[in-house]
Amino acid sequence: MQRVKVAIIGFGNVGKEVMGAVIESPDMEVAGIVEVPKKVECMKGKFHNFPVTSNVEKLDKVDIAILAVDSRCVPQIAPYYLERGINTVDAFDIHGDSIIRLREELTLVAKAHDAVAIISAGWDPGTNSVVRTIMQTIAPKGITYTNYGPGMSMGHTVAAKAVEGVADAVSLTIPEGNGIHKRLVYVKIKPDYDFKKIEEAIKNDSYFKHDTTIVYNVDDIENLIDMGHGVHIERKGVSGRTHNQRMEFIMQVTNPAATAQVMVSAARASLKQKPGAYTLAEIPPIDYLHGKKEEIILKLL
Amino acid sequence: MQRVKVAIIGFGNVGKEVMGAVIESPDMEVAGIVEVPKKVECMKGKFHNFPVTSNVEKLDKVDIAILAVDSRCVPQIAPYYLERGINTVDAFDIHGDSIIRLREELTLVAKAHDAVAIISAGWDPGTNSVVRTIMQTIAPKGITYTNYGPGMSMGHTVAAKAVEGVADAVSLTIPEGNGIHKRLVYVKIKPDYDFKKIEEAIKNDSYFKHDTTIVYNVDDIENLIDMGHGVHIERKGVSGRTHNQRMEFIMQVTNPAATAQVMVSAARASLKQKPGAYTLAEIPPIDYLHGKKEEIILKLL
Repeated sequence: MQRVKVAIIGFGNVGKEVMGAVIESPDMEVAGIVEVPKKVECMKGKFHNFPVTSNVEKLDKVDIAILAVDSRCVPQIAPYYLERGINTVDAFDIHGDSIIRLREELTLVAKAHDAVAIISAGWDPGTNSVVRTIMQTIAPKGITYTNYGPGMSMGHTVAAKAVEGVADAVSLTIPEGNGIHKRLVYVKIKPDYDFKKIEEAIKNDSYFKHDTTIVYNVDDIENLIDMGHGVHIERKGVSGRTHNQRMEFIMQVTNPAATAQVMVSAARASLKQKPGAYTLAEIPPIDYLHGKKEEIILKLL
Repeated sequence: MQRVKVAIIGFGNVGKEVMGAVIESPDMEVAGIVEVPKKVECMKGKFHNFPVTSNVEKLDKVDIAILAVDSRCVPQIAPYYLERGINTVDAFDIHGDSIIRLREELTLVAKAHDAVAIISAGWDPGTNSVVRTIMQTIAPKGITYTNYGPGMSMGHTVAAKAVEGVADAVSLTIPEGNGIHKRLVYVKIKPDYDFKKIEEAIKNDSYFKHDTTIVYNVDDIENLIDMGHGVHIERKGVSGRTHNQRMEFIMQVTNPAATAQVMVSAARASLKQKPGAYTLAEIPPIDYLHGKKEEIILKLL
């Protein structure tokens, strides 16, 4: 069997886990790692025997590029690969309109170059979106609540770090139920700054002001970092004319590993789609798995 | 907007709920109810203003036939509709090889007549199969346990009723965790039969002998019937090289209503597939929902 050649674009927390997930996939191999400028400058040459380069064209044949990069870079980076006929997978996680725009833009580029882009292929947006879709398939009317955490929020951590006087910070998302969240922010402050003022600034920041936010003054952030995260999706709804249909999905995972594995599974699915751009809910779930269709049906049905 | 015309084949617990779910679907309408011999003989003529017939050809245009019939009848009934270019949806729930055979047979008929068959479109097999697939997408290695209940098992109820001396019975499935189940069987015995012997016969029946089975002697079965059912799917697995990734899906529903709604959602999806036969895991989840793709993505992503 010819293994599918996967290039890993970006080599942060998620990129490293993508490498592990590709190695563990019986149908794939790592074609190489492509540096994203300023992020992996430290790793010129080789890593774990895989070539590391700043340009995918220096690698041998690449079938799929997994973009383990900042979401904000995806709209710039993805077209470069698609134009070269390389499928892309990203975990673009900026909710709302921007996903629709990304899908439109990449659809055009992908179709023009006979390639497939799978977008927002993490766990939220991503597999959680599929779970929400299935819950609505079972009960079309009703309300779905997505409760995140407990776990680190990247966006809120960046926002807390940006506050003047903050040397380092981490923001945890604590689920309070019904889609409502509490924020616990641990900050290490710079010398000669007033904790009370920093606390105030964080609580008034647009990222935090709508939630109950508690700020703690600590000496050390590094030792608080744990990549565990979770989600609890709840739906109570109506099937036909029958009320009180209840569904829950609970997940507790090491965050970058889950994201990376979903991207790698989506990479496999990309080979089975027609040219274009897709979110996970637009792909037959069986396409994510390795193996013959009939065997998967027999096992998972 | 032209509404899709749905014929309901069979009018038992599930068929009645299919009617409700079609009426509540903004894009569908009931074309009519087709009797399955001996099941709905009582309803000649009309029901709720919908025509009732023993032959679908007596109805006006029908786009989709929802087969709310005994699973064992599906292989016989489905081809009749597919040959007439009518899509079919069934909730065929006999696990194992027979699903693969049904899929193969209906694929041939459906393709020959430009129609689509969606098979095993209940909640298990069905939406639970999709959930198991998604869990494996997130963590390809590991073990999934499906715990059913508490709720009525149709198959076990039929098996208990078939035991000599049983006047009426109901069998409940009680989850014990890790895919292990206990069976609680309530029987009403015929006069002059020995409960101890009936208890023994049930416990030795092939449906029951592998599980802990407790048999109760009761006066009345009717008043014990509750259509509530549930499932708890658990997976602990490995994403890439990261262990201890945990996922759960919990559902507590009125059983026939959930089955019926999934079938109706699958009926909608049938219009978006190419000719052939599909299990739910082979269909993009977004196709089950009513509305524009972009709007669904925006809402559920």
